[in-house]
Amino acid sequence: MSTKKSIDYKLYLVTDRNVLGNRDLIQSVEEAIQGGATVVQLREKNCSSLDFYNLAIKLKKVTSKYGVPLIINDRLDIALAVKADGLHIGQEDLPLTVVKTIVGDDMIIGVSANTLEEALLAEKQGADYVGIGAVYPTDTKLDADYLTLDDLRSIRKAISIPIVGIGGINEKNAVEVMGTNIEGVAIVSAILGKQDVKQAAQELLRKINN
Amino acid sequence: MSTKKSIDYKLYLVTDRNVLGNRDLIQSVEEAIQGGATVVQLREKNCSSLDFYNLAIKLKKVTSKYGVPLIINDRLDIALAVKADGLHIGQEDLPLTVVKTIVGDDMIIGVSANTLEEALLAEKQGADYVGIGAVYPTDTKLDADYLTLDDLRSIRKAISIPIVGIGGINEKNAVEVMGTNIEGVAIVSAILGKQDVKQAAQELLRKINN
Ligand code: NI
Repeated sequence: MSTKKSIDYKLYLVTDRNVLGNRDLIQSVEEAIQGGATVVQLREKNCSSLDFYNLAIKLKKVTSKYGVPLIINDRLDIALAVKADGLHIGQEDLPLTVVKTIVGDDMIIGVSANTLEEALLAEKQGADYVGIGAVYPTDTKLDADYLTLDDLRSIRKAISIPIVGIGGINEKNAVEVMGTNIEGVAIVSAILGKQDVKQAAQELLRKINN
Repeated sequence: MSTKKSIDYKLYLVTDRNVLGNRDLIQSVEEAIQGGATVVQLREKNCSSLDFYNLAIKLKKVTSKYGVPLIINDRLDIALAVKADGLHIGQEDLPLTVVKTIVGDDMIIGVSANTLEEALLAEKQGADYVGIGAVYPTDTKLDADYLTLDDLRSIRKAISIPIVGIGGINEKNAVEVMGTNIEGVAIVSAILGKQDVKQAAQELLRKINN
């Protein structure tokens, strides 16, 4: 039996310690949820498994309190350890087919796809949603290849599972991204990098909903 | 039902890419097994999950060919993904109690312990073996606290599960370490750092067996 939740992908918050500066990650995510974030992905790199686990446990308490799904980036062991709602894997993480043999259908699995082919394969292999991007160049990946809105529309027509746009999405371009008929936008610095995190989430949600 | 193998911990090889230089990890481990390594722990840091997985899959083929158990360091997700025989966790990795809730008794779980208290707790929480050390200072941890042979003897008397000595053990001191009545020695550079890996393993095993 699947224990998956039905997820609202609309305002998909991805954590990034680097944009938070000295501010507390857990408290900032709680403010983002209060502002309207509909799903939270915890993304940590270069920390010990114990630190990742302890952080995920704390974050799970917050997301559970608000009934918002928690998705862990990359690390299936952490996702299993904290009984997260989902796992998000990139093309450099464990293969989707391998993950599925371990968790079956009991966890939401999202896959990052940068091309139509990767998106089609992810759907075929049983991904619950795909993160498609980068839609716009980001500060950290200035020279990365990115997709056009037309690319997003083409992928939207080609697959049936939910699509979240990823990469450089902010209050200025979120509306046109959602205009491609995808289910949500993944936001990092346009929420967590703002002075008032809750207000930033509120304004983004308001624009998307209009 | 437990699918655990009964493990011979005597000559416990731990991989380290840094001591291999340009040599191939998989081939070097195969030579070490041919020389007498009785168990192999794959330890990788700072590589993508996909790279870790692909390496572990390749290594599993070699260890399976020789009937030698493969233990994965730190990463339970990788251990599950490649159906490794075991997982070795340190004090900065996932807590043993959490790991046990996920894998039950179907995987060998080893725990690094640096004190008698940590060793007692690991045994109480269901560890299958403990790695105790560092027994001698290593090149990479010159100023780390290390245990004396008397410390090893005290821990040996206090717990019942197998003990593997870890840290700075080589052909010069392996015999005195085994003299504390522990089950095995964990070796890194004294095998993988030698020009003739197979011969290094053979000589270590011969000394230990004498
Ligand atoms: Ni189910």
